[in-house]
Amino acid sequence: MTHPRLPLRAIAFGPVLATLVASSAIASPESLAAALAQKAQDTSLALEIATDLTTEIGPRLYGSESEKRAANWAVKRFSVYGFDKIWMESFSVERGWKRGLETASVTSPSPQSLVITALGGSVPTPAEGIEAEIALFKTIDAMLEQPEGSLNGKIAVVTQPMAIGGYSKISGAIRSKGPSEAARRGAIAFLMRSAGTDNDRIAHTGGTSYLPEIPRIPAAALSVPDAQQLDRLSERFDKIRIKLVLTPEELGTVTSQNVIAEITGSERPDEIVLLGAHLDSWDLGTGAIDDGAGVGIVMAAGKLIRDLPNPPKRTIRIVLFGAEEIGIIGGQYYADHHADELANHIVATEADAGQGPVEFMNIGLDNTLDPTLATIRKALQPLGIKSGRSKSSGGPDIGPMHAKGVPAIGLSMNTDDYFDLHHTANDTLDKIEPKRINQSAAAFVITAYLASELGGYYRIQP
Amino acid sequence: MTHPRLPLRAIAFGPVLATLVASSAIASPESLAAALAQKAQDTSLALEIATDLTTEIGPRLYGSESEKRAANWAVKRFSVYGFDKIWMESFSVERGWKRGLETASVTSPSPQSLVITALGGSVPTPAEGIEAEIALFKTIDAMLEQPEGSLNGKIAVVTQPMAIGGYSKISGAIRSKGPSEAARRGAIAFLMRSAGTDNDRIAHTGGTSYLPEIPRIPAAALSVPDAQQLDRLSERFDKIRIKLVLTPEELGTVTSQNVIAEITGSERPDEIVLLGAHLDSWDLGTGAIDDGAGVGIVMAAGKLIRDLPNPPKRTIRIVLFGAEEIGIIGGQYYADHHADELANHIVATEADAGQGPVEFMNIGLDNTLDPTLATIRKALQPLGIKSGRSKSSGGPDIGPMHAKGVPAIGLSMNTDDYFDLHHTANDTLDKIEPKRINQSAAAFVITAYLASELGGYYRIQP
Repeated sequence: MTHPRLPLRAIAFGPVLATLVASSAIASPESLAAALAQKAQDTSLALEIATDLTTEIGPRLYGSESEKRAANWAVKRFSVYGFDKIWMESFSVERGWKRGLETASVTSPSPQSLVITALGGSVPTPAEGIEAEIALFKTIDAMLEQPEGSLNGKIAVVTQPMAIGGYSKISGAIRSKGPSEAARRGAIAFLMRSAGTDNDRIAHTGGTSYLPEIPRIPAAALSVPDAQQLDRLSERFDKIRIKLVLTPEELGTVTSQNVIAEITGSERPDEIVLLGAHLDSWDLGTGAIDDGAGVGIVMAAGKLIRDLPNPPKRTIRIVLFGAEEIGIIGGQYYADHHADELANHIVATEADAGQGPVEFMNIGLDNTLDPTLATIRKALQPLGIKSGRSKSSGGPDIGPMHAKGVPAIGLSMNTDDYFDLHHTANDTLDKIEPKRINQSAAAFVITAYLASELGGYYRIQP
Repeated sequence: MTHPRLPLRAIAFGPVLATLVASSAIASPESLAAALAQKAQDTSLALEIATDLTTEIGPRLYGSESEKRAANWAVKRFSVYGFDKIWMESFSVERGWKRGLETASVTSPSPQSLVITALGGSVPTPAEGIEAEIALFKTIDAMLEQPEGSLNGKIAVVTQPMAIGGYSKISGAIRSKGPSEAARRGAIAFLMRSAGTDNDRIAHTGGTSYLPEIPRIPAAALSVPDAQQLDRLSERFDKIRIKLVLTPEELGTVTSQNVIAEITGSERPDEIVLLGAHLDSWDLGTGAIDDGAGVGIVMAAGKLIRDLPNPPKRTIRIVLFGAEEIGIIGGQYYADHHADELANHIVATEADAGQGPVEFMNIGLDNTLDPTLATIRKALQPLGIKSGRSKSSGGPDIGPMHAKGVPAIGLSMNTDDYFDLHHTANDTLDKIEPKRINQSAAAFVITAYLASELGGYYRIQP
């Protein structure tokens, strides 16, 4: 509050870039992109931004005061960086929610506490909690095979592990649909093994949802060791009872916002190259990996381009989305609210898979031989980035605009440890490694700059 | 409760041992010891015992019902294993204690929750908590330099990191003495960076103590990432306020117990070879590494010797100590209560440094050339165990009897990850690796068996 240390210092460009800049009339876009990438790695600017955000703001739950403070922080930072236009776009989010107390314990046969965390959007238990026998299923399919009424009065527990790369299956079939499917069968609460790949005694949150006309029951995730403990207990004892206390509050409709900042293009200002990340985070950690790193990466890319003596030919637009975690609300709002100008979005990409490094460049269009893409692909090679074979929607928040025709590039990041930390209290700054985030910032600045400069009057063709 | 799966099956001895046993009149103690070690590794018995203890009992805080249940569990298990004598020795422990709610958050300038855990024995805050400005010190020495009264009304925070191998310094100067030293200077609560080597968002507990005639203030440990966050905030802002809620209960005098089980020696039954571990654990995890692994290791060693066709020459005594974590109360009680027979203790060793593997054999006597020790040393070599150069007291609970003259062997374990997990919620079964605990069980069974068999009428000389 009193004297926040803002990184006001302009980043001095090193000898390579200075030379190129001095002869900028003849420096190729490729040379300038390479120099920008070097600068991204030398300055560690992305990490500096992520550090400031996660320290000065901390967690940033959708619709919260903290998310709003983060948005104001970002506006101020973009202003310090000298962006040409900076604004916020607010929107409503249904299902505002605030975490409360959350405790659980085995009460019988062997009393012991369990590490849990409420799924985002969960209804509370009564303040004194509930205590009931569990019905444990080692797979979600085993639970779905049960007839209606078979779980009456019980706490349903699903301990299915998340396979490597299996996040969407667990988050969909179990985290999102599990509570209502358990309630349909009579369960009074729902516990799942965390959607995560670690074995820390830390539970992973994430949004759940409720089907209409089925009782809404409290829902939480167990840490992986706790789920394993319940597996072992269920192999040894017939009846296991658990006490569960969850006191989250439902807040009704709340407000979130996207923060948008632009460097106006010098030749084709109406044509937009969009870099995105999301500013909101789950509330348990400080949102360093998800998605403070992404915010650092795209803000750093923008700042480095801003610092060039000559502005980019096309407009570079950075969008820090709000309310991603509860269902990509900010991304959807952007696609709807900017529908009229989406045809002017040359390309969009997002950093929302941790700190990197970027391993593959995937594309979200059919014209894989587009010459601009070929140039970007070549420029990314020195960073160890390969041509990916997957079709990409560019990132979660880019998905809705991509669905409406915006060409997307997916700079696909290494996620080996992402699902160890994702949606947990353990998502904190110390988990970010400078080399990794810096390589990502380099990849994003190359992509943004070349997409702005290349092609002359030619545009990437979908 | 209903059908605990007890590992009642006798462990069938494999061909090697069967052959040796068939010719046991001529099998050397060294050959039998090697066969026992092989069996320890083939059967994974130590891990099986640790699994059962940590699952069927869970956490085992000193003086708690759970510690008592663990003691009963151990008596039953020793009985199933066919030990000759099994008994409990109860004793009083002052400062009985029970953890309550524990929450903390930065309230200003950037509201965010902190991961903390009360130090064992801490007094509570008022139920509604306390909220105050912090005085942050990056070293304990910096706090100790402050004059009395300088911390009036503040929460003292010490963020000194634990160096590798620096546990005893942190646990002594900061965890044990910090709260009173802060209170002497006027502080109303004390927070320390966890005594641990991990960077998980999990705090490490451990016992604290209070000096007489100084106000007793609430004391807790911050997880390492939270301590780092406060360091960063203190570099950016002049005033940081924290709210702290701790509601532990002081229970006064409680009862703990040592569980003792013997295989009576066939030739020198009055001479005792003692293997120890401690049955109590901190309450946050299930005490797998500290010290469920040790319990598994020494019980497995005893069970394997028990299963030999011929009993050992000397008596093998397994002691599972109570109330180690709050100040080696069980170990001290044993040394006092058994003072008369300590002269008959040939040698004692303890498994209380995690799962292993055992890396060094250290000894707690001056006669390093004792021929029995030389034989044990040689027998341990195939397990990769080297001769250590440190003088050992044999383990924490063995310390008091060693101080009274009992020869000690220190089977020194690898502790590379021990202080990542030690005293945390993360101390759970999944952290134990079969190969590591099995090697340790092999080392302990070799040591116990050879100490029983060797030397004829010769005893290890202190």
